[in-house]
Amino acid sequence: MNNNHYCVIMAGGVGSRFWPISRHDRPKQFLDVLGTGKSFLRTTFERFANIIPVENVFVATNTAYRDMVLAEIPELKPENVLCEPLGRNTAPCIAYAAMRIRSINPDAVMVATPSDHLILNEIHFCEVIQQCLDFVSDKQESLLTIGLQPTRPATGYGYIQVNKHVAEGKFNKAKTFTEKPNRELANIFVSSGEYFWNSGIFVWRVDTILRAFEEHQPETYQLLDSISEHYGTPTEQEAIDRIYPECRGISVDYGIMERSSNVWVRCSDLGWSDIGTWGSLYQYASKDDNGNTYSADTFTFDTENCVIKTPEGKVAVIEGLKDYIVVDTPDVLMVCPKSAEQNIKRYIETVKFAKGDKHV
Amino acid sequence: MNNNHYCVIMAGGVGSRFWPISRHDRPKQFLDVLGTGKSFLRTTFERFANIIPVENVFVATNTAYRDMVLAEIPELKPENVLCEPLGRNTAPCIAYAAMRIRSINPDAVMVATPSDHLILNEIHFCEVIQQCLDFVSDKQESLLTIGLQPTRPATGYGYIQVNKHVAEGKFNKAKTFTEKPNRELANIFVSSGEYFWNSGIFVWRVDTILRAFEEHQPETYQLLDSISEHYGTPTEQEAIDRIYPECRGISVDYGIMERSSNVWVRCSDLGWSDIGTWGSLYQYASKDDNGNTYSADTFTFDTENCVIKTPEGKVAVIEGLKDYIVVDTPDVLMVCPKSAEQNIKRYIETVKFAKGDKHV
Repeated sequence: MNNNHYCVIMAGGVGSRFWPISRHDRPKQFLDVLGTGKSFLRTTFERFANIIPVENVFVATNTAYRDMVLAEIPELKPENVLCEPLGRNTAPCIAYAAMRIRSINPDAVMVATPSDHLILNEIHFCEVIQQCLDFVSDKQESLLTIGLQPTRPATGYGYIQVNKHVAEGKFNKAKTFTEKPNRELANIFVSSGEYFWNSGIFVWRVDTILRAFEEHQPETYQLLDSISEHYGTPTEQEAIDRIYPECRGISVDYGIMERSSNVWVRCSDLGWSDIGTWGSLYQYASKDDNGNTYSADTFTFDTENCVIKTPEGKVAVIEGLKDYIVVDTPDVLMVCPKSAEQNIKRYIETVKFAKGDKHV
Repeated sequence: MNNNHYCVIMAGGVGSRFWPISRHDRPKQFLDVLGTGKSFLRTTFERFANIIPVENVFVATNTAYRDMVLAEIPELKPENVLCEPLGRNTAPCIAYAAMRIRSINPDAVMVATPSDHLILNEIHFCEVIQQCLDFVSDKQESLLTIGLQPTRPATGYGYIQVNKHVAEGKFNKAKTFTEKPNRELANIFVSSGEYFWNSGIFVWRVDTILRAFEEHQPETYQLLDSISEHYGTPTEQEAIDRIYPECRGISVDYGIMERSSNVWVRCSDLGWSDIGTWGSLYQYASKDDNGNTYSADTFTFDTENCVIKTPEGKVAVIEGLKDYIVVDTPDVLMVCPKSAEQNIKRYIETVKFAKGDKHV
């Protein structure tokens, strides 16, 4: 493994779309939603531990989740947990991590990755990341993102159009970015063959991404650069807590990638899903002959294509549901059609309004 | 109140149709299914305490439920809980109670009643019972049952045809009995105006009902009469435990009433329901504008005509269900269409087969 290679796992989200399983005090990345025996965060860490030295792995998270991160990844050096005092989307998070890594190794090449995605083709993934690290070591000025061959006209993802479509396994220059297109546009994108899903996994040299910040997010760059003498010292957290709230909350896609001309896409087939919703969980979960996926001790009658999630030891008897989500937790029961899962945010607001923060 | 008047509340059933709320170790009569703040058993006791001296009130139950009966009705003398070592349907239960009461007062007039029915017109009910007690004190040879004006062609009840229909509030001679007719027959019964629902509430002199047992259920009569020296003594339970298993399990309707020629029906309007199923609970429960009845902290969206029952403190969010039953308990979740509630016995068998007795 190359000691110049670094990885930042972004684990600060609250994943409200998996409510009532995910909660503010235990969001999705800390859960074993797929029933694999490991949390998303742990799985992501183990995937990168194959190719990046463990001492070069950082996890950026909310201060509130610091202990949960260390509990999930005891191998992690405590100082490698980067704590955001509050969420400011991915751009400030990546800039902070890049500054911290630059303070250790100005020649560093880094991967920035979400902590809560599914990747089925793990061996291929490691090969791709390795090729990406090599690519940006060679083409030093490039900002590289991993693009994925769309398998359906999803409306919840970002799409990247490439300059000219070349075979899978190649690097393509990015041309346009489109966040969450409508169904019609998504259909056109997918059939064109020129568009790829944006995985949210980025690879670049730290100096390259920081130059991009200096150009496209100068306030954030200056704020984070102004505390450069604190990085890696006991006063880092205090300094971050002071300046972080002033950083502009914006995604790295919108704040940097869409504004840059040196963006490349590594188009890959990784068996990827962001498992962003109960519906996408359903897609990847193992199902019975009637298309149901459920926890142990669930008994179904005349029930098809349902996601049924219950706590360990609980018996569930379900009859007459088609295409529903049934999620039971000790304090919240949710039953809704799969087609209504975009309403979960509304459920959370309703419960929060009536009952306060206790159940959200 | 007349000291010759006695009451036997039959509280031995397991009420599996209210699973998963009702369980073997806490059946329906001990539950506050309607959310009134009182169990069915307690409500039944209080209703009779208006007209029968408390020391003349007996509760017949399974030995396993003895302590629960006394906890629900602390006013009850412990020796007034008649414990059946096992269920043998209503005929042996009533014969045992009648023998016990005869040993105290051979002139006794008794009411025998289920413990788990709903009666809305309580004042009228007390008047009716009083009239019934007077009727059988006068017409000493009669076996009297309370009949109810059918409000729909229910197929789950017993029907009694009267000799000649006279106005409500009168006593009619019974002509025929029909248990659980099919829908077609039930329709004919209801439109004829000659049929009444059998409430399972009986009034008679103890000597009259015991003579009927001697004639129509002679083995049961002889078994229970053979231990007559034990009634009211410390050896009663031991004697009952010995002979009770030998009694024939049969309902008093089928074993006595249908075979007797001296049966009368007091046709009444009591606002009665046996609340035998989740569907009948739904009928009597208070509902929101969309026809849903639910526990506190339940939030519904696009949901109509549902029964939603959750434990105290639990939040439920339900979307897109029409005519469903959702019952959540700490260890069992059940979701089924109201039209499928007759399948609950099947659910119980399935869960019992897979998980043993723990959840049933």
